[in-house]
Amino acid sequence: MGERTGDVSSPARLAGPGEGIGADELALATRNHGLPLEALRHDVTPPGLHYVLTHYDIPYVPDAGAWRLTVDGRVRTPLDLSLADLLSFPQVTTRVTLECAGNGRALLTPRPVSQPWLVEAVGTADWTGVPLRLLLAEAGADPAAADVVFTGADHGVERGVEQDYQRALPLVVATGHDPEVLVATAMNGAPLPPQHGRPLRLIVPGWYGMAQVKWLRSVTVSDVPFTGFQQSVAYRIRRTADEPGEPVTRVAPRALLVPPGFPDFMSRTRVVRPGAVRLVGRAWSGQAPVSSVEVSTDGGAHWVPAHLEPVADGHRWAWRRWHHDWAAVPGAYAVGARATDAGGRSQPLDQCWNRGGFGNNAVCWVRVVCVADAHSP
Amino acid sequence: MGERTGDVSSPARLAGPGEGIGADELALATRNHGLPLEALRHDVTPPGLHYVLTHYDIPYVPDAGAWRLTVDGRVRTPLDLSLADLLSFPQVTTRVTLECAGNGRALLTPRPVSQPWLVEAVGTADWTGVPLRLLLAEAGADPAAADVVFTGADHGVERGVEQDYQRALPLVVATGHDPEVLVATAMNGAPLPPQHGRPLRLIVPGWYGMAQVKWLRSVTVSDVPFTGFQQSVAYRIRRTADEPGEPVTRVAPRALLVPPGFPDFMSRTRVVRPGAVRLVGRAWSGQAPVSSVEVSTDGGAHWVPAHLEPVADGHRWAWRRWHHDWAAVPGAYAVGARATDAGGRSQPLDQCWNRGGFGNNAVCWVRVVCVADAHSP
Repeated sequence: MGERTGDVSSPARLAGPGEGIGADELALATRNHGLPLEALRHDVTPPGLHYVLTHYDIPYVPDAGAWRLTVDGRVRTPLDLSLADLLSFPQVTTRVTLECAGNGRALLTPRPVSQPWLVEAVGTADWTGVPLRLLLAEAGADPAAADVVFTGADHGVERGVEQDYQRALPLVVATGHDPEVLVATAMNGAPLPPQHGRPLRLIVPGWYGMAQVKWLRSVTVSDVPFTGFQQSVAYRIRRTADEPGEPVTRVAPRALLVPPGFPDFMSRTRVVRPGAVRLVGRAWSGQAPVSSVEVSTDGGAHWVPAHLEPVADGHRWAWRRWHHDWAAVPGAYAVGARATDAGGRSQPLDQCWNRGGFGNNAVCWVRVVCVADAHSP
Repeated sequence: MGERTGDVSSPARLAGPGEGIGADELALATRNHGLPLEALRHDVTPPGLHYVLTHYDIPYVPDAGAWRLTVDGRVRTPLDLSLADLLSFPQVTTRVTLECAGNGRALLTPRPVSQPWLVEAVGTADWTGVPLRLLLAEAGADPAAADVVFTGADHGVERGVEQDYQRALPLVVATGHDPEVLVATAMNGAPLPPQHGRPLRLIVPGWYGMAQVKWLRSVTVSDVPFTGFQQSVAYRIRRTADEPGEPVTRVAPRALLVPPGFPDFMSRTRVVRPGAVRLVGRAWSGQAPVSSVEVSTDGGAHWVPAHLEPVADGHRWAWRRWHHDWAAVPGAYAVGARATDAGGRSQPLDQCWNRGGFGNNAVCWVRVVCVADAHSP
């Protein structure tokens, strides 16, 4: 083995034609997890069902009372805050749908070798915390600064680079009111679970998961754009390895359905009985409100509008419920849904391929068979 | 597609030589999840970090107050109980380490195609509920009965058989004091999360996960041995497809360690610095108390005894903590631990192969490199 830390990494690569999921991808799939899609029934996802992705280890924080958050860099007055200090600021609760930027990656051809998500890397929670803009105002952040850099306590190596997990937001986003970025201390009314950032994390409504820095230790105001690994190397939309690419930012529109009927254990094919089947699901976009959802039961040959239910209680950063009543007759079906947002963005039927496997919001199909027998032989 | 429900299933099979994880296995790995191994630091696993395996869908139970549990079959007085009724019985809390019978399956050669666990399908919780023996006494179970059959609300198809998930225990186990089987309503002092059986599940200390029936709806005392799918077809130790095999019952001994240092994102290789490294882990067995743990840093060529910490507060059905202080010098290592229980059972170095991939408790190796550089270039 190597003599340098970075030698534990291998270069990014694409899977070969027909190459199955490898041991490295499986190790990630076994520790991270998606939302079991039947849990789309819950308006607010119970913590253990919400998707989780951690790049390195989940930090062990036995004493949250000892945690400190610093706010420094281009500020008038650096801050060094305890959890109790944070709770003395005004608290806001926002219902937010979070999605991993890599959701849909394992459906791509060729497949970028990384965390092999299908489509389940999503969840919705009520996040409570201090608006970041209040902390930046308290510290007196330089209004001419470029970026605000967030550092988590999670530490590891990635593509040869040893690092604490770090991401940045432009100052205008970090101090924005809409969306309002939170330094969150609670999820669904309880302290953050370890895997969701105990005791502190960032919540940036409408942005993909890489922006939602967990185990937040420091907020640093910078007068130059941040060029750390997770900003400039990872999380870029690239077709070739040598182009700089575009940054991954906000969540593209997507609709998913609660798989109807009941599953086969291994194939996950769904079985429904003939008759009325209510298809229920959720739709979201981080770019603009969802404006319509369509449903197809024939793999996209025909589409019908679903009934989009009202935005509940002003929860505009959360997924929106929809349903469609399907009159099922015996046969085999490919059932899917397609969201469109108020900006006119709609889910494609073909994959959105890029080398990192980010933002692939192509419509996903659920195999359903409708059979009349009450019991198998 | 077929005209019968059972046609959605394909037969059980073994992966071919070098065959990567397939789309069907990945779909299971993405919805179920293991314990991220760094969470072995927690005495009691937070619910979202505890392993989860569900054969079919997680039932949606919006109103736990409407749930009923029936106790019937060969009983003097059938019972039909609400949650409130259950809470009127004496309550017991037991700390139990649960492990999936398929843990270690994806490390087998050839690999049985099913949920592709590496070694993380484990967790420990404080489960609170009514001793099952009290419910069976209240109902007046026939002491000459053979089995007690447990039915969950989870419904699906498996290998062509449509079913509610059902498992049985011999009457003598179901009414036993040691271990004492619980009908549990709480996990770590809170109502059961959906994925752990909300609102009711069985807890059978010392047994693999297939016995821990979730979303429990009925308890049926039977004068004939139960021959349902999960008892007679699945969860049997078989070398060939046509032998009846032995039933999967109690948990074999295993030790795992908190992976030391920090990881590479993709390879999960660990990096430690030269000097004292405390290796910490847990060990358990459902067959007898763990009596010793040994550690190797060279892939099993040499073993040294670890310090096995005392059983905490009589928690004899929970994992036991151990540690070993390792003086790391630069180099590459394969670090593992091996548990032995008071019955003399010890973990093998070679795989325990069977067609279902059950109970493979072979020692597992963590790749560690010790490097002196403080930062990668």
